[in-house]
Amino acid sequence: MAGAGPQAGAGLVAEELRDAWASLDAEERLEGFRLLEAAEAEELFDSLEARDQSALILLMREPERQLWMRQLAPDDAADLLQAAPAEEREALLRVLDAPTRSEVSALLAYAEDEAGGLMSPRYVRLRPEMGVDEAIAYLRRAARERVETIYYIYVVDAGHRLVGVVSFRDLFAARPDSRVRDVMSSEIVTVRADLDQEAVANVIAQSNLMAVPVVDAEGHIQGIVTVDDIVDVVREEATEDIQKIGGTQALDAPYLEVGLLEMVRKRAIWLTVLFIGQLLTATAMGYYESAIARALVLTLFIPLVISSGGNSGSQASTLVIRAMAMEEVRLRDWWRVLQRELAAGLLLGLILGAIGLLRVLLWPGREKIFGVHFALVGLTVAVSLVWIVMWGAVAGSMLPFVLRRLGFDPASASAPFVATLVDVTGLVIYFSVATVLLTGTLL
Amino acid sequence: MAGAGPQAGAGLVAEELRDAWASLDAEERLEGFRLLEAAEAEELFDSLEARDQSALILLMREPERQLWMRQLAPDDAADLLQAAPAEEREALLRVLDAPTRSEVSALLAYAEDEAGGLMSPRYVRLRPEMGVDEAIAYLRRAARERVETIYYIYVVDAGHRLVGVVSFRDLFAARPDSRVRDVMSSEIVTVRADLDQEAVANVIAQSNLMAVPVVDAEGHIQGIVTVDDIVDVVREEATEDIQKIGGTQALDAPYLEVGLLEMVRKRAIWLTVLFIGQLLTATAMGYYESAIARALVLTLFIPLVISSGGNSGSQASTLVIRAMAMEEVRLRDWWRVLQRELAAGLLLGLILGAIGLLRVLLWPGREKIFGVHFALVGLTVAVSLVWIVMWGAVAGSMLPFVLRRLGFDPASASAPFVATLVDVTGLVIYFSVATVLLTGTLL
Repeated sequence: MAGAGPQAGAGLVAEELRDAWASLDAEERLEGFRLLEAAEAEELFDSLEARDQSALILLMREPERQLWMRQLAPDDAADLLQAAPAEEREALLRVLDAPTRSEVSALLAYAEDEAGGLMSPRYVRLRPEMGVDEAIAYLRRAARERVETIYYIYVVDAGHRLVGVVSFRDLFAARPDSRVRDVMSSEIVTVRADLDQEAVANVIAQSNLMAVPVVDAEGHIQGIVTVDDIVDVVREEATEDIQKIGGTQALDAPYLEVGLLEMVRKRAIWLTVLFIGQLLTATAMGYYESAIARALVLTLFIPLVISSGGNSGSQASTLVIRAMAMEEVRLRDWWRVLQRELAAGLLLGLILGAIGLLRVLLWPGREKIFGVHFALVGLTVAVSLVWIVMWGAVAGSMLPFVLRRLGFDPASASAPFVATLVDVTGLVIYFSVATVLLTGTLL
Repeated sequence: MAGAGPQAGAGLVAEELRDAWASLDAEERLEGFRLLEAAEAEELFDSLEARDQSALILLMREPERQLWMRQLAPDDAADLLQAAPAEEREALLRVLDAPTRSEVSALLAYAEDEAGGLMSPRYVRLRPEMGVDEAIAYLRRAARERVETIYYIYVVDAGHRLVGVVSFRDLFAARPDSRVRDVMSSEIVTVRADLDQEAVANVIAQSNLMAVPVVDAEGHIQGIVTVDDIVDVVREEATEDIQKIGGTQALDAPYLEVGLLEMVRKRAIWLTVLFIGQLLTATAMGYYESAIARALVLTLFIPLVISSGGNSGSQASTLVIRAMAMEEVRLRDWWRVLQRELAAGLLLGLILGAIGLLRVLLWPGREKIFGVHFALVGLTVAVSLVWIVMWGAVAGSMLPFVLRRLGFDPASASAPFVATLVDVTGLVIYFSVATVLLTGTLL
């Protein structure tokens, strides 16, 4: 129904421009943006990421720039500034009105990805002894100003400490002669300003609240984080995790908008690290060269055996990484996870080992390809698979714990990283099993 | 500050029980739940997933069961019913009061993962010609009933078609003598009842709204989807995608709560499919066995070369899968993505190829290990790497497009799946390059 109003002319609508956005350069974006009618332009501007907003605004001159900067809530303005080059920030701050400027400056002190960086300072405060009717009249005035939300009202004592919260709706439904103190709840879910945004998202998701207050160590309220900002956070964090799991650095921008060289750089770093790790496979293979020369048949199964370990490891690491991000698994759960993965890995290894053994035993022309000892070759493959798949599950599941314990992001235990780790050790397991089972026959 | 109220006794608090939740069986959970005070129990109950709520309620007898079922908003009650075994649903429905029962029954007609399955029927409707003061008085009564939100009010015509939306705040801030029509906006972002929940999340994330109305083909409003439900959707969908990218079926429950056999089943299916695919590597290796016998040195680099292709493919597929989920990349963009990945793959291949070449040329004792033709061996590795890494990037990025075009979930193009695909073709590329470069010397 968007654009159906009588004022919608023949011009460009926000959605069309949004669709073309990724393929336009900065100048074309501004040009398109200026062609939009006021309401459409506002809709588009609000839907842009801070990075895109800042690029657009930096191309504008003073009066236009001021118009759009003043459009923004202080937390959004702070995000925009953080996305702009450091040398431009001063100029952007200057076009804001004085009270907003000081709000925004205060917010800039917080890291972008912490509760402090997400919060809005424009919440509504009341005193506990205020009457409900008086409070509603006050809110009616506040609703005309630019407060972030009037839907939750925070109750503070004389020392500005948070003592209660009341939803607008409860206030509205309360008896007019009661006091704020009577309708407020003193069970308040709060977060600290330096809490990581992923943890803030977990708090909001579990509490089903529309907003959470941010407090300092003494319980003074600093601002509020609203659920609509959290939707963006959850999407962003999931994108970062997925990209890391895929073995890339986080792109920080939509796929089609990242420059080719930037994209190559973000992928080359991990790919090179993995490649250097993989060079160890060549070293390991060199170590077993004489075994390979004597039993060439062993080489046939190398990709099969090591990849199965890698796949099992990728499964385990992604499951644990996600469970950690969702706070379903904590550091102290490592022992329970290890037990599970040992059991799951053993079962999975037995399944693959059985299939592998059958395949060798039933291979057409098996004696011609594998020699008279084909059953022993099959057994070597099967036993190796059990060990390697189990090892993959254990290594893949424990690596995120190790990374988190050392203070790194568990999501760096990417599928390719685990696969590489398991490839090298998998070769060692495979040739060790072969040495035990085949010495005296093939070796 | 939770639990700091005077009524908080020495008993168990919700958070403690929540922490222990995963390690308790059904009976122990109910026991713990009953030990909580009313407010704590409510907090815990609200924070539980539908599956856990339903398990808990099914253990209760009539009066207790009724108490907790009636606690739920209709959309949450519908979720709970959908999580319960089919034969129990009738009994659970019966304990609801009549109006809620019919609301919940209507919601059960929609799929859980579509807008219809997420929506609440308890929104507030007004007529456009109503006066603002009259509207506020009406809302004041509505706020006392169990409506989902009074923060957005939907304006419908005599035929129940949605004609406008107004935020409570705008209504509240409006001149008392104006009409709803004057303050409402007729530019409404709407979704259809059968829209997939991931797409609904994208609409809400881009529009920054706190709720979106669900309409049928004729524009009649059916219900609303609120942003707090969307946070859960975004987390759930990201979890599913991450698990699929890791090569597992979606677990549908927290990692530690999935039974061991269920976990093994969900992982074994993909692992077995991948294993059967990997068996082709043994076939491919068999095909090149005579080349291997003549130039044993080639085997040393097999894991290195094929894994690099797999890693490059994992990167490309996860980037494209995520970009598709975020609606940054659409089906029609396949050609732009292909061009990018060809270029990125070529550059990444050149980087790895150069490192590989240098490594062989500088390997201590290179002539002893690789023979007099060590430079040619290095060249074979380097050229293969360029082709294989490029092929990995192309295959990994195009696979999600193919899957989506065929109506499958692009996230099924998991890192292990792409790696397996590229392993098999990588071997063919490697031995083909070797045949071209080494025939007449080593081969």
